[in-house]
Amino acid sequence: MSPSGDPRARLSLNQATTRKQWTLREAIEGCSRHGLRALSVWPDKLAECGIGEARRLLADHGMAVASFCLGGLFPAGHDRFDDHRRMLDSAAAIGARCIVAVVGTLDPAAKDLAAARRRIEDGLRSLLPHARALGVPLALEPIHPMRAGDLCCVNTLAQANDLCDALGDGLGIVVDVHHVWWDPGLERELARAGGRIRVFQLCDWLRDTAALRDDRGMMGDGVIDLPLIRRWVDAAGYDGFYDVEIMSERTWWQRDADEVVDTCIERFRTAC
Amino acid sequence: MSPSGDPRARLSLNQATTRKQWTLREAIEGCSRHGLRALSVWPDKLAECGIGEARRLLADHGMAVASFCLGGLFPAGHDRFDDHRRMLDSAAAIGARCIVAVVGTLDPAAKDLAAARRRIEDGLRSLLPHARALGVPLALEPIHPMRAGDLCCVNTLAQANDLCDALGDGLGIVVDVHHVWWDPGLERELARAGGRIRVFQLCDWLRDTAALRDDRGMMGDGVIDLPLIRRWVDAAGYDGFYDVEIMSERTWWQRDADEVVDTCIERFRTAC
Repeated sequence: MSPSGDPRARLSLNQATTRKQWTLREAIEGCSRHGLRALSVWPDKLAECGIGEARRLLADHGMAVASFCLGGLFPAGHDRFDDHRRMLDSAAAIGARCIVAVVGTLDPAAKDLAAARRRIEDGLRSLLPHARALGVPLALEPIHPMRAGDLCCVNTLAQANDLCDALGDGLGIVVDVHHVWWDPGLERELARAGGRIRVFQLCDWLRDTAALRDDRGMMGDGVIDLPLIRRWVDAAGYDGFYDVEIMSERTWWQRDADEVVDTCIERFRTAC
Repeated sequence: MSPSGDPRARLSLNQATTRKQWTLREAIEGCSRHGLRALSVWPDKLAECGIGEARRLLADHGMAVASFCLGGLFPAGHDRFDDHRRMLDSAAAIGARCIVAVVGTLDPAAKDLAAARRRIEDGLRSLLPHARALGVPLALEPIHPMRAGDLCCVNTLAQANDLCDALGDGLGIVVDVHHVWWDPGLERELARAGGRIRVFQLCDWLRDTAALRDDRGMMGDGVIDLPLIRRWVDAAGYDGFYDVEIMSERTWWQRDADEVVDTCIERFRTAC
C-alpha cells in the first residue's frame, strides 16, 4: 500500500512503456509489485488477455485503468464505426477513466488536410453519443506535428480545445509532454483546457532524437522542463494519474521491465 | 535563356539538395546548364569556393542568389556575434536576396524554452542594424517543431510574424513547406506575412518519413498539397524564387545531381 505522500499513488504505467516485455497480466502484476495503483491499457494487449480475465486481474490487484489507448480512429474512408463502438465498449468494460483518441489524418491521395480535419470532427460527433452513454470520456490527444502525415492531424492543444468547444460534453483532452512541449501557446491552452484534461502523460524529449517513432526518453534525460509543465497542468485543476508513456526502441524496450518501472518511479520523484 | 512562361525562370536550386554531389562551382555551372537562373548558397560551400571566385562564377553565369542559408544563430551562450556579422557580410558580398536565419534553441541544461525565445529576440534585435545597413533582409525560418529540441525554437509562422511585428524593418520570413505544411493556421499566417516572405522553399513530406533529419521527399512524392500552399504564398504577393530544398539521405543524395535537377524541374511543372 502506498503511504500518503508516496509519489506512486499518482503514477501510472502506460503499457506502451513495457510493450516489448510484458503482457497485460504481467503489467498488472508488475505494477502491483512496484506499488503502482494504475496503468494504461492498449487494445492489442487487452485482446490477447481477454476482457473477463483482465477485469479479474485488475480487481484482484486493485488496479485502476488510467486510460485505454486507441490509435487510428477515423482513417480516410470513414468506415470503421462498428469497430470504434466495440472499442469504447471494451474501455468501459475494464473501467477505463478515459479513452485516448488518436484521430486519423489525411488521405495521402487527396492530400487535403482541411477535409481530413472536417471528417474527424464529423466522426467525433457521430461517436460521442455512444461514449456519453457509456460514461467514458473520449479524450483527444494532440499529436506532434511530425506525425501529421501518417497518424493524426490534430496537432496542437488549441485544435483540441477548439474541437471540445464545438462538440461539447463527453470529449476530453490527453496532454502528452512529448507532443506539446514545444508549443509557444502551451501555458495558455492548458489553462483553457482546465477540467478537460483526462490524462497527463510523461516522458522526455531527447536532444538527439533521431526517429519519428519509438525514440522517446526517460524523464530527466531530455530537454523538457517537466516540473514547469506539471505545474501548469496541476494549476488547470488536474487530479488524475501521471501516466508514463515511453516508446523507446533504443533503450527502454531493451531493458528488464522491472528495472524500467523502478527507473520511472525514481525519475518521477527526482525529475518531474 | 528561359522563354517567357518557362517554369525555370522562377525556380531555384537550394544547394542542400545536391550537397553530397556538387561544390558551389559545380552547382552554379549545373544550374546554368539546366536553364535555372538562381540558387541558394550555404556557408560551408561558399567558404570552400571563396567569395571572389563565387562572385565571378555567379556573374559569368548570370545566376541570382535566392538566399544564403545560415543555421545555428544565437546558440545558448550568445557569443558568436562577430561570426554572425561576418556571415551577413558574406551574404551581401554574393548578392544574396536574403539571409535565411535558423535561430537557435534552448540550453539543454537550463531547459528553459521561454528564456531561449527571449534570448533569440534579443539576438535578432542586436544583429538587425547590421543587416539593415547591408540591405540584406534577415529572413526568419520557422522550423518544424520536431527540431525544437536541438535546432530552433521558432516553430510556427505565427511566432515569426510576431517577431517581425516586434522588431520591425529588416526582418523577413522564409516559408519552407516541410516545416509549416501541417499548421492549421497556415493560410491565415501566410496572408499576415504578406511582403515579409523573402523565399519560399519546396520539397514534400513523405508519408513514411522515418528520420528527423535529411529525410525529405521530392515534390509530388509526399502528402503536401503543394499547389494549394503555392496559391496562398502567391496570394500573399510573393514574386521571388521557388527554392527547392530536399535533404534526402535515402534517395536524392544518392543520385546523379543532373538527374536530381531534371526531376526538380519536371516536378515543379507537374506537382506544384
